[in-house]
Amino acid sequence: MVHVKLIVIGKTNENYVKEAIEKYKLLLSKYCKFELIEIPDVKNGNKLPSEKLKVAESELLQTYINQKSITVLLDEKGKKMSSEEFAAFYQKQTILSSKINFIIGGSYGFTEQLKQESLCISLSSMTFNHQMVRPILMEQVFRAYTIIHQTGYHH
Amino acid sequence: MVHVKLIVIGKTNENYVKEAIEKYKLLLSKYCKFELIEIPDVKNGNKLPSEKLKVAESELLQTYINQKSITVLLDEKGKKMSSEEFAAFYQKQTILSSKINFIIGGSYGFTEQLKQESLCISLSSMTFNHQMVRPILMEQVFRAYTIIHQTGYHH
Repeated sequence: MVHVKLIVIGKTNENYVKEAIEKYKLLLSKYCKFELIEIPDVKNGNKLPSEKLKVAESELLQTYINQKSITVLLDEKGKKMSSEEFAAFYQKQTILSSKINFIIGGSYGFTEQLKQESLCISLSSMTFNHQMVRPILMEQVFRAYTIIHQTGYHH
Repeated sequence: MVHVKLIVIGKTNENYVKEAIEKYKLLLSKYCKFELIEIPDVKNGNKLPSEKLKVAESELLQTYINQKSITVLLDEKGKKMSSEEFAAFYQKQTILSSKINFIIGGSYGFTEQLKQESLCISLSSMTFNHQMVRPILMEQVFRAYTIIHQTGYHH
């Protein structure tokens, strides 16, 4: 079974986001081992200049990345795909490795170094609320499985 | 004050979506008069062929559209924008008319006629869960106001 880690910065503090996460955890449990890893915010991060905060966050994230896994960053400059294309991408990556990480960073994104070491995808040209992106990504992974398994969930 | 109607097909049946909607209703109340209109599903719609259901839904939606308002359909083939571009688009439209409708249709989209009479935007190349699209769009309208008013919410 594929082991999917969703690694995010900052606790989920909105109740509705927590509920949505629980819903998709349950739906995903049929298809993969899913794990949400919430990394605490960088201490006094709001006092740091944005560039320094970005570096601190990317370095912190790197300590959570297992070298034998595929790492996919959610980045505004990343590749945009339809849900069908994402399903094909996901299937391909999970054949290459049974461990896949999706990473949702902070407000200022990731360092160039982390981007070069990872795959980058974008959910939208628009900026979405960082908390809401968590269940949106989970639903997209669930949708990918329903596309791969042709369950009829996806039109 | 701009009057924003979000017109959707089908009740909001997920509790976490209801909570998210309430949250953004409150946030939007500072900037506009927001109204969510949930149109009941077409009767026995699940027994209709997809094309007939689409026609029935688009005809039903048209009865809710005030001719003096701007109507924006959320459609997968619609224009994709960044949040800044959406804020500029939203500002322009709400100068033209103080009444603006956003419409989230059913699984099979809208008829060509309805599309020709409306503006079409797309939130993403990906297909999102139809219920989750409701708060995602509301957050985007809220984000548009914070961009226009430069509140610092949007990075």
